[in-house]
Amino acid sequence: MRVAEGFEAGVIDNRSTPHCRVQGVPIADVTILGGFWKPRMEVNRLRGIPRLLQLLEEHGIVDNFRRVSKRKEAVRRGPLFTDSDLYKWMEGAAFVLQSSKDAELDSTLDRMIDEVVAAQGPDGYLNTYFVDEHASERYTKFAHNHEFYCAGHLIQAAIAHYRATGKRNLLDCAVRFADHLASTFGPGKRDGFSGHPELEMAMVELYRTTRKREYLDFARYLLDQIGFPSRTAIEGHAVRAGYACCGAADYFAETGDKPTWSALERLWSDMADRKVYITGGLGSRYEGETFGEPYELPNLRAYAETCAAVANAMWNWRMLAITGKCRYADMLETVLYNGFLSGVSLSGDTYFYVNPLESPGRSGNAERGHERKEWYTTTCCPPNVQRMIASLPGYIYGVADGGVWLNLYQPSRLEHEMGSGTLILEQKTSYPWYGEVEVIVRDAPSKRLNVLFRVPAWTDACRVSLNERRIPNPKPGTYCKISRRWTPGDRITASFDTPVRLVEAHPRVREDFSCWAICRGPLVYCVESVDNPGIPVQDLFLQPQPTFKFQFRPRLLGGVGTIRFNALVAAQKGPLYSTSGTRRPRLRHVNALAIPYYAWANRGLSSMLVWLPRGACLLARDKGTW
Amino acid sequence: MRVAEGFEAGVIDNRSTPHCRVQGVPIADVTILGGFWKPRMEVNRLRGIPRLLQLLEEHGIVDNFRRVSKRKEAVRRGPLFTDSDLYKWMEGAAFVLQSSKDAELDSTLDRMIDEVVAAQGPDGYLNTYFVDEHASERYTKFAHNHEFYCAGHLIQAAIAHYRATGKRNLLDCAVRFADHLASTFGPGKRDGFSGHPELEMAMVELYRTTRKREYLDFARYLLDQIGFPSRTAIEGHAVRAGYACCGAADYFAETGDKPTWSALERLWSDMADRKVYITGGLGSRYEGETFGEPYELPNLRAYAETCAAVANAMWNWRMLAITGKCRYADMLETVLYNGFLSGVSLSGDTYFYVNPLESPGRSGNAERGHERKEWYTTTCCPPNVQRMIASLPGYIYGVADGGVWLNLYQPSRLEHEMGSGTLILEQKTSYPWYGEVEVIVRDAPSKRLNVLFRVPAWTDACRVSLNERRIPNPKPGTYCKISRRWTPGDRITASFDTPVRLVEAHPRVREDFSCWAICRGPLVYCVESVDNPGIPVQDLFLQPQPTFKFQFRPRLLGGVGTIRFNALVAAQKGPLYSTSGTRRPRLRHVNALAIPYYAWANRGLSSMLVWLPRGACLLARDKGTW
Repeated sequence: MRVAEGFEAGVIDNRSTPHCRVQGVPIADVTILGGFWKPRMEVNRLRGIPRLLQLLEEHGIVDNFRRVSKRKEAVRRGPLFTDSDLYKWMEGAAFVLQSSKDAELDSTLDRMIDEVVAAQGPDGYLNTYFVDEHASERYTKFAHNHEFYCAGHLIQAAIAHYRATGKRNLLDCAVRFADHLASTFGPGKRDGFSGHPELEMAMVELYRTTRKREYLDFARYLLDQIGFPSRTAIEGHAVRAGYACCGAADYFAETGDKPTWSALERLWSDMADRKVYITGGLGSRYEGETFGEPYELPNLRAYAETCAAVANAMWNWRMLAITGKCRYADMLETVLYNGFLSGVSLSGDTYFYVNPLESPGRSGNAERGHERKEWYTTTCCPPNVQRMIASLPGYIYGVADGGVWLNLYQPSRLEHEMGSGTLILEQKTSYPWYGEVEVIVRDAPSKRLNVLFRVPAWTDACRVSLNERRIPNPKPGTYCKISRRWTPGDRITASFDTPVRLVEAHPRVREDFSCWAICRGPLVYCVESVDNPGIPVQDLFLQPQPTFKFQFRPRLLGGVGTIRFNALVAAQKGPLYSTSGTRRPRLRHVNALAIPYYAWANRGLSSMLVWLPRGACLLARDKGTW
Repeated sequence: MRVAEGFEAGVIDNRSTPHCRVQGVPIADVTILGGFWKPRMEVNRLRGIPRLLQLLEEHGIVDNFRRVSKRKEAVRRGPLFTDSDLYKWMEGAAFVLQSSKDAELDSTLDRMIDEVVAAQGPDGYLNTYFVDEHASERYTKFAHNHEFYCAGHLIQAAIAHYRATGKRNLLDCAVRFADHLASTFGPGKRDGFSGHPELEMAMVELYRTTRKREYLDFARYLLDQIGFPSRTAIEGHAVRAGYACCGAADYFAETGDKPTWSALERLWSDMADRKVYITGGLGSRYEGETFGEPYELPNLRAYAETCAAVANAMWNWRMLAITGKCRYADMLETVLYNGFLSGVSLSGDTYFYVNPLESPGRSGNAERGHERKEWYTTTCCPPNVQRMIASLPGYIYGVADGGVWLNLYQPSRLEHEMGSGTLILEQKTSYPWYGEVEVIVRDAPSKRLNVLFRVPAWTDACRVSLNERRIPNPKPGTYCKISRRWTPGDRITASFDTPVRLVEAHPRVREDFSCWAICRGPLVYCVESVDNPGIPVQDLFLQPQPTFKFQFRPRLLGGVGTIRFNALVAAQKGPLYSTSGTRRPRLRHVNALAIPYYAWANRGLSSMLVWLPRGACLLARDKGTW
């Protein structure tokens, strides 16, 4: 299935990166064989990506380039950073080409590349806003003008395209711009900084692709300019903070710079322990699209921008590559199945910009409300979703000198040259609906190799067997290592118990206090009114000891596991504030249905809740304990 | 104490308003005799008002007028609506002059008036922004340009000044502007609307002051322009919505227009039942300074702008005047003692723009953080606080044909000409710390008169006596009417029980679910870290049945009643999300101290909480009920 022999890099090319425990595998080495992600990759390729290019054309985003190259008379349209939207679309399309030959997409991409390259200045500068009447504003407002940000996305798109096709048409253009930037800015040169980080990771990846050391040095310069190594808390604009962490992780992986690693560990803990939604979403505030105070995690007003989920996934993938620690893979999985995937409809062509954990079932805000749209004025999220989905095969496996890592479970085939020979694995699973995974070795190098099986932290009991013999004590939240000389036909089976779990938040998360979220496997569930006729979901309370019934329903929402449970409805017309104990809600016992959070808002406007208040206080009141 | 004979109007002049049950009394008729509000009025007069004028001068706000009148070369400074800040300051100063002779303030005010009047155009137009280079923008962007808003504040200031002094210098200026507006805009003329309502109530008040019908018609036009009568929910910018309701209430009071009243009742219920903080604060979102969804009432990120509290007080005062219903007086009282009063420091010269119900003890936002400032770039709140405090004597009593209404309890003397003779009452109380009120009739007309005593909704038991004889069954949440021919020496005593109350919110208020607020009398309490050394207040939980000890401490925070109570601290380092029942918090029993919410943030940055989570779940877990 190799589409471009010789371009052996994965999503990131950390094959010879000194401070990585796990290396990515080329997307071309992984074949997706049905399962959960296959249909999503297909609608992404067949509907999402073509439709978004139409929209980029309709909204004049491609014309912006034609205007600069004088190929077309046009007024510049869209926000000043919108070049990046085309670049992200290109990167997504290039990732598609890394896993499937698609001659039409290949030539469409070449046409777009031609438009982009034609707009590049003789000095290498490339931006459709800061030209002509705005040329004097070039490099004047680093905090807001997104010039470095757009450059970063150009570079990432160029690298993905080069890895897909071996063509240098876009890569050479990106290199010219990168050289222009690196020769203009830096110690002893002009000063500039990333108002919106992104260029950092692009520069490290360009170093990895070209081995030109100045790109790595430039990444270091950019990280210093934003004071990265001395950051103590994850704060400010969530996407910017997340991309900065990705760039810093890439920089550390190449250099082993200790202050950078300390900052990364501090920021990751601040995020994971205090500032991430249960869905993996990041960003609590509409105002400034920022992180909030520790534990400030509103549900109805969660911002949790889809782009921030992408940033979180990318960051955790990099942390996993560096450390091989399961917690980063767990977070990656949480984001992918929940706060990231909610960002796109099942049809693959409408998107959420924000991903609330509660909805009143009204579209309260025309631009960023509770209903997916195919286009946003700031349309950063749609192409970000596309590139992430298209690159997913690159996240499933990792390799290292000693063997292979199974990070994500998904029916797939890995065929990877290990140096000592080719490893071919076949993975079968109906994950995330059921916790059984089977891996069959089809071919293997003759030397001893580790297979590292991720045992997700969410499982409370698991069994891993090799050729029907149990591996002792696999521990949730770690990788379970099986080391041997493998022969074709060797069979590893894993079974992770997937009970319905009631999850509670740290009590400082005031919005979730005395609430439970229903989870199963890696999935967070929600209650949507469309599934619960006659039940005002905002008045739903959980029983003290609810019983749950899981059922996979192949025809619902593209195939989902639903959870039916007994609950209470306590509708109250009472006053907003009242002396404790004076409310007399009328209780009604109901059966409610929960669906995976990612699947909500696919059937029109509907009210929705993730965190369900516990009803014990309602029942207990009569017994005098409250 | 009359300072201006012949100017007999109260805060609003509804003496001959047809659809009002209760009329205001002139501020000059009420003498404040110590008690809770006296020192606040004093610091307002002696520190707040003089200091703010200095700041208005330092920031060029007065110079903006001098620039237009060519008295001074200056660059225009401040936001485009900042004229209103000087006008509100003038209105506050004028209210001070309504209750006390202050020759220096009187002449200062005259000097300011002279500056303002000199800037007025020959056509009556008066605005320091839309002149000269911005003259062409005049009346072009009604949604944002605040021209009508500034005009409204000018008119209100002029009326208050006229009522204080009998001088027409500012009133004539305001009338010229009003005539200009009324002749420029309206049916068959140019169209315009209040992007920020305010002019509506000013126009009704100008009608009341001049009896020129066109001002009332203009108010109607303005209300129609913003679609007021068809509004179904209180939404959007909280101050704007509140001021619109004030104007609509004034308009209804004069006309009896039924659709306007229906809208007012709908909006008030939407506010009181779903969208008001327990403090009386309005506005849940930083973004747009708006109301949120029903029950969306975040505490840390409460906006609850001080100006919105002022609007809420003014609106409820108008609703009370129209209906005589206690619930509006209760809301007025809630706002005044909590969400309004928190907006100003005890020293009377620093202000909150936003009034959160929880603070991390850090000033998270330089401009609108958790620390009071004497000046804001948008400095609307400080002069709004000043005019409200200066006008407070006008809110305590109301009169009607049949008698006198006691709306607020405050040591004071009322001397009011009832038509049939002079009524003189003396009110003694240490409210809000204790629930005893004594009213002694010093003089009364010889005819039968009602005295209507407000019995606050928050009391659970009360006694009202006339000359030591109990009045049967006074009912909380109503006015208790005593009707008789009064003779000097008649003595009414009321005693409202003031137990500490644990208040809970409607369970749809997710941030307050399973929490209690500690309240006593009209006061909402909070826990501030400065009073609770060694206790992380964010980890404080209430006992299932706490015991409370109230103590009045004259030397703390200008004299406050504190509440000591037993509580639990459950500090948890645990993960952000965990399977239910797996947390093992270490419990510590502590004694905590609560202070009135209004008094917080007077001792530097301090973390603070109003809503305290209930600890029953912590205690009960071991018994297996959770």
